[in-house]
Amino acid sequence: MNFPESVLLREDGPREGFQMNEEVIPTKKKLELIDALSKTGIRSIEVTSFVRPDRVPQHADADDVCKGLTEVPGLRYRALYLNEKGLDRALSHPTIKPEGYILIAASEPFLKKNNNQTLEEAIEGIGSWLDAFLAHGIKLERVMMSTAFGDADTGPLPAKSTLAVCERVIDRLADKGAELPEMTLADTTGYANPESVENLVKAFQDRWPKIQVGLHLHDTRGTGMANVYAGLQCGVSRFDASVGGLGGCPFTKSTAGNVPTEDVAFLCEQLGISTGVDLKAYIAAAKLAETIVGRKLPGKLKDAGLLQGNPQ
Amino acid sequence: MNFPESVLLREDGPREGFQMNEEVIPTKKKLELIDALSKTGIRSIEVTSFVRPDRVPQHADADDVCKGLTEVPGLRYRALYLNEKGLDRALSHPTIKPEGYILIAASEPFLKKNNNQTLEEAIEGIGSWLDAFLAHGIKLERVMMSTAFGDADTGPLPAKSTLAVCERVIDRLADKGAELPEMTLADTTGYANPESVENLVKAFQDRWPKIQVGLHLHDTRGTGMANVYAGLQCGVSRFDASVGGLGGCPFTKSTAGNVPTEDVAFLCEQLGISTGVDLKAYIAAAKLAETIVGRKLPGKLKDAGLLQGNPQ
Repeated sequence: MNFPESVLLREDGPREGFQMNEEVIPTKKKLELIDALSKTGIRSIEVTSFVRPDRVPQHADADDVCKGLTEVPGLRYRALYLNEKGLDRALSHPTIKPEGYILIAASEPFLKKNNNQTLEEAIEGIGSWLDAFLAHGIKLERVMMSTAFGDADTGPLPAKSTLAVCERVIDRLADKGAELPEMTLADTTGYANPESVENLVKAFQDRWPKIQVGLHLHDTRGTGMANVYAGLQCGVSRFDASVGGLGGCPFTKSTAGNVPTEDVAFLCEQLGISTGVDLKAYIAAAKLAETIVGRKLPGKLKDAGLLQGNPQ
Repeated sequence: MNFPESVLLREDGPREGFQMNEEVIPTKKKLELIDALSKTGIRSIEVTSFVRPDRVPQHADADDVCKGLTEVPGLRYRALYLNEKGLDRALSHPTIKPEGYILIAASEPFLKKNNNQTLEEAIEGIGSWLDAFLAHGIKLERVMMSTAFGDADTGPLPAKSTLAVCERVIDRLADKGAELPEMTLADTTGYANPESVENLVKAFQDRWPKIQVGLHLHDTRGTGMANVYAGLQCGVSRFDASVGGLGGCPFTKSTAGNVPTEDVAFLCEQLGISTGVDLKAYIAAAKLAETIVGRKLPGKLKDAGLLQGNPQ
């Protein structure tokens, strides 16, 4: 096995998870969860989203969330933004260290629906993003490649199609003199399986050995944790995840949430891969997340608890 | 990859899944689910349990269930039994083709609690089981090795400990002139991880290449589907599973159910491994199972549906 020695888990529950929730969560409850998460040893939490409040009412309190954060050494609070104005707002909060990231999608219909852009326009727009990062004194950290394994409009995508989009992005960055530290391959709507994860990750690593691969995996069709395992087998050491699996709505036919952070951390621990995360504290946070949204979340470890007994 | 070409899925929901349900399900509802399952292309269903009704009230209607079954060519209805009397009852129903199986556990405390036996007694008792199978004209088909990866009393078990128990069983069978077609390694309470599955399965295959390995995996701590994938990577072609993941009770701290059959079948299909199962029909059966138990079941595919679009 080519397992990494350690894994960086990035918690997306308070932003992406809550965003999927129909009812707006009171700011105080959001901060309660973020505070619980901040005591788990996790090193990165996406706490909110600086987007238009009429489009995403759940995150209309973004400024208040950021003002209410308790800073913890070694822990980075991130926030989502979709344009320079959002980045400005994020940077106005001393508690937030926004990532320099660029959103692209391997499926063009997805990009059109979500970003109102063609792929050509998105790639052209990379230059403006780099200028904005420069102007704001932040560094490019990653490209988030949504629908890297396909989506409902495009169907399952073979590795070579996604790699072709990656190549256009990386070439454009190179033209602008920028090096990419990480490509996050996102299975946005559950089109990945462990074999397609392995195929895409290995092909990417072979082609661009200096660029880290990150994985952002939703457990839409039950393959989420097997996909994580396939990523670990390829040495992937950066995973986005969501406390308790917060994100999917269990009573509607919607995209299920990210893989549960504490289940991923447990899997890593069982495989001898360190995450820096205290599982007991994470279980407590996952239970709190359940209480806040008022429904059962899909994560498993929180219900079963840790293993008992000593290894024989 | 060493994936098998095809996989035999054995449906355990109507027996093991319902048994975990607190409320007794009406016989008619059980038969409705079994009928729905019987139209999916699945080849093996455990429909009930011939055990003492005072111990397992859920299966007090075992005889009525068996009388109500509609036979389908190529589909085998199985039933659980724990002693010769139970086997007699199972065999009294022409609809049932009971498996010749022997239950053992790798964790002795588990065996004592569940079977009121020491390991020595269980291994000694293999002779009586073989006699009973001979007397009833059925063949030994498999040994079910419960807690093959450990349990709360014993802790996680390394492969060598479980293999030592397997060896005692296989040697005892050989002493009695019996060959074992399959060893089913069961993760009864969620102590397996994909690496321990790989270690145990590979070690077993190396040692006893002529004995098939089966896997019976519960998704107690979120590693269930990754464990299935690890088994498939080792060429395992027999999996017990439960429609919708029926089995765990989501509101109590209990052992979660088997991996969801339709999610396992979807994973296999995505990996190019045939199962003979119609996923749409299985999704419908999983939704019916949810209606019957009146709560959300953990399976994912039933909520998300099949992939859309054509492979690119």
